[in-house]
Amino acid sequence: MSTGDSPSILKLSSDLDIHVRFANPPPDLRAAIMRTQSRLFSDSFQPLVLGRGSADTDQLKNAPALVSLELMLVSGRPARSIVEETNVAIEAKSEAYSLSLRDGNNSAILSANSTLGLFRGLATFEQLWYDYQGIKYTLNGDMKIDDEPAFPYRGFSFDTARNFYPVSDILRTLDAMSWVKLSVLYWHIIDSQSFPLEVKAFPELSEKGAYSANEIYTEDDVQLIVQYANERGIDVVMELDSPGHTTAIGAAHPEHIACASKSPWSKYASEPPAGQLRIASPTTLAFAKTFFASVASNLPGKMMSSGGDEVNLLCWEEDDETQADLAQRNITISDALNQFVETVQGVIAAHDKTPFIKSDMVLTHNVPVLNDTVVVVWQTSEDAAAVAERQLRFIHQPSNYFYLDCGAGDWLGNNIAGNSWCDPFKTWQRAYSFNPYANLTLEQRPLVLGGQMPLWSEQSSSENLDSIIWPRLAAAAEVFWTGATLPDGTSRLGKNATSGTRALARLNELRYRLVDRGVKAIALQPKWCVLRPGECDLDS
Amino acid sequence: MSTGDSPSILKLSSDLDIHVRFANPPPDLRAAIMRTQSRLFSDSFQPLVLGRGSADTDQLKNAPALVSLELMLVSGRPARSIVEETNVAIEAKSEAYSLSLRDGNNSAILSANSTLGLFRGLATFEQLWYDYQGIKYTLNGDMKIDDEPAFPYRGFSFDTARNFYPVSDILRTLDAMSWVKLSVLYWHIIDSQSFPLEVKAFPELSEKGAYSANEIYTEDDVQLIVQYANERGIDVVMELDSPGHTTAIGAAHPEHIACASKSPWSKYASEPPAGQLRIASPTTLAFAKTFFASVASNLPGKMMSSGGDEVNLLCWEEDDETQADLAQRNITISDALNQFVETVQGVIAAHDKTPFIKSDMVLTHNVPVLNDTVVVVWQTSEDAAAVAERQLRFIHQPSNYFYLDCGAGDWLGNNIAGNSWCDPFKTWQRAYSFNPYANLTLEQRPLVLGGQMPLWSEQSSSENLDSIIWPRLAAAAEVFWTGATLPDGTSRLGKNATSGTRALARLNELRYRLVDRGVKAIALQPKWCVLRPGECDLDS
Repeated sequence: MSTGDSPSILKLSSDLDIHVRFANPPPDLRAAIMRTQSRLFSDSFQPLVLGRGSADTDQLKNAPALVSLELMLVSGRPARSIVEETNVAIEAKSEAYSLSLRDGNNSAILSANSTLGLFRGLATFEQLWYDYQGIKYTLNGDMKIDDEPAFPYRGFSFDTARNFYPVSDILRTLDAMSWVKLSVLYWHIIDSQSFPLEVKAFPELSEKGAYSANEIYTEDDVQLIVQYANERGIDVVMELDSPGHTTAIGAAHPEHIACASKSPWSKYASEPPAGQLRIASPTTLAFAKTFFASVASNLPGKMMSSGGDEVNLLCWEEDDETQADLAQRNITISDALNQFVETVQGVIAAHDKTPFIKSDMVLTHNVPVLNDTVVVVWQTSEDAAAVAERQLRFIHQPSNYFYLDCGAGDWLGNNIAGNSWCDPFKTWQRAYSFNPYANLTLEQRPLVLGGQMPLWSEQSSSENLDSIIWPRLAAAAEVFWTGATLPDGTSRLGKNATSGTRALARLNELRYRLVDRGVKAIALQPKWCVLRPGECDLDS
Repeated sequence: MSTGDSPSILKLSSDLDIHVRFANPPPDLRAAIMRTQSRLFSDSFQPLVLGRGSADTDQLKNAPALVSLELMLVSGRPARSIVEETNVAIEAKSEAYSLSLRDGNNSAILSANSTLGLFRGLATFEQLWYDYQGIKYTLNGDMKIDDEPAFPYRGFSFDTARNFYPVSDILRTLDAMSWVKLSVLYWHIIDSQSFPLEVKAFPELSEKGAYSANEIYTEDDVQLIVQYANERGIDVVMELDSPGHTTAIGAAHPEHIACASKSPWSKYASEPPAGQLRIASPTTLAFAKTFFASVASNLPGKMMSSGGDEVNLLCWEEDDETQADLAQRNITISDALNQFVETVQGVIAAHDKTPFIKSDMVLTHNVPVLNDTVVVVWQTSEDAAAVAERQLRFIHQPSNYFYLDCGAGDWLGNNIAGNSWCDPFKTWQRAYSFNPYANLTLEQRPLVLGGQMPLWSEQSSSENLDSIIWPRLAAAAEVFWTGATLPDGTSRLGKNATSGTRALARLNELRYRLVDRGVKAIALQPKWCVLRPGECDLDS
């Protein structure tokens, strides 16, 4: 991203037209344009300076007004919908765009190779403006941007199983994600605690495994959410975490679960309740195959995950049925695990999707995976290099940088003085300091598809969703859009103390814009500091 | 609190009458009864067990129904309003009540010595009930309670200066506070960052010192808030923090502020911006006198605070005006500080209010205070004993147990890896483990009036208010209502592992009730655990 030399004020004409300058614009682009048009005039965010918008009154009087925004598609290909562009393979996404605010005659030009690129440009365009008493204006009227992401995968991983979130929460989150140009919702939809996903092949799974009849994502809900996401340039990667984290399947199908709710849970699982799929059972393997196929066949995206984290071997060692299956088939538990992963990856691949898997499945259990598998590196950022050595593509989701849930103490009932396992709280600064290329060779860099911050919901729910995500998630969004360094090549939060100050100013602006749009992002500073960037720095 | 032997189911008749069985019930009691009556039937909270309310269907069929609640005043005195009872001296509050649910003829009896006691009983009564498909019922139909608080001062300290909160936030918080029987809102209304309080004698203070014209508590707002609080049994202690934490006064009256916004702020203040009242200046002293009197004269309560924390001596040492004043008057800065405190305490006392002061003013600066002063012990719980040695009454507000804002990293712009100064996050377990009598002799115990959890708002705002307070504040509310030990005399979270589990179950119930009533309290556990108390304990 590069901006013009000196800021110059430009108003938005109240008659602003957004023109599509190519044939047959798809309906979802038209809808996106209407949303932009609406937000341009409903946003009431004023600049974060002393006096807010009133500081610009004098300049506003004689400022020129932008009368149109012209959207151009420069590829020459017929326009495909945003949804179609979103659902191409992750490595083939076309998100670049150019925006020139005053390209003569008080018209702005937004051009891209795809409707998805235009959509990214609209997100930028609609956040350039301030409000003062109904007048919309920018201080960067000469802005010219050539913008594209450093990484195609920029995600948010969302656990809707430990506690349930209404559909409206997810839609609001998708909107906010699109404003910071995130490209993936990685949906950790089910877990051992509850099974809120309606599965066509096995409706009993959610009927018996959800917290209640009101806490289920029906097939229609999932379609709605995926469509809503895709229209906003966001791919949905559904994670059916397995073979661990599956106890809730046992509510309907106890025959598939080993060590179900076995006590003490801490011997058999990372968190309560214990329970894993009986991977050695041919019946369970058949169930898993149908289960994955049933979910995959309803998803348009090109990515899907079988999870695979935190498998507990003792659970299977002490399970009579599993031991009998192993003996009968004359295989080891390791063979069975390999076969399970091979099976579910096969289903995913058969549905024309790239399989995702959690890093411990590869690094701890040495399970062989398909060559194009994407590994979710989660335990620690140190694991990235080991995954890269195996020549596997991966995304960064390190608990020591990106976990949104850390730092609020233990949630077990009687572990009074306990910390959260991933203490301390991951500040925006911590997330923002992440280097996607740390410890990687130049040759390994293409293996990095991007990264994501996860919210695990043991201590979260609808009530604090916005405030635990925002604006921290935007810090990671900037890392994966802008890349390993700042645009000028310097490190993001290096020895240059002012880079943190500048990043904070951007994040403060985003936070106030989010609040203006109804997303309850937390304050990062007293407003006194927000209005005076740098003055709350240490030693200032 | 003692409950009956075995739980027995009791429904609430949809015709339930709440009768006042004494002459001339005050209007605020009548209003409280109407709120209770309304909530009894609008609450839709179901028991936190598997199957929720449906688990009780069979028992519900033939359960007896409560047809009336009879309110008795046993003092024999004429009934005073809740507001009047709330505004008596803290040591004279009458909050005890008795509640007998089925006192023959399907009538319940609630009796107390005061309308405030009746109000506390109503808070208990209205939270006994579950909902199942519109039927309201309790599992403790034989409940008999004799209940009273261990400490009269049970507070929440609220900073509305670092970031501003709309009046509606404060009213909602007061409602929730009353549900857990908190008795004091300690209102840290102004600070160095902003001055949101309209002061009759000096309207320019908020006109120039507030963040904006929309971020001011007008006199009417304050009256509304105090009245609303008092009607809910909550006293309001206004803190005019001084002589530190006053930079915002300088926006209108720069002549009263030493080292205003002096750089680097960290030499002259605990946080930006620097600035303290010129305590040696006779003009400033006169200003402070009028300022305190103007605010005090509009407040009905019997308590008021001059704060006094984090005074910075270098600020005055380097201030030419202060040095000139000291020289001219031939006094030391210590003399000036003593005189300042004597002056503002004098104003508070002259308005028939008990003065509150922060503990460092007494322990660090050895400022002499009035005998009946209440000290706010804040730096560490260890300071309580030192205050007690001086024979001063005090409240507990230790940063190492009760600060709601800790653990989210530093908010200074360039201190990238910094922690919050009071790391780590204070969990509900931490707050709940507090012993109000730790390190005190038996003789010193009467000096403890109670305690409070504060929210400092550097990183908080309207957006996360509910979720950062609730339900943690309820843990402290229980500590100061129930006392130093559990009702059976054992320690609250001692070696008995199940006490934590039982406390968590109570807190989970409260959290779900708060959410049901529209307060966005965070989840403490996955719902799986909530529905199975104890099953998520370690080693279970």
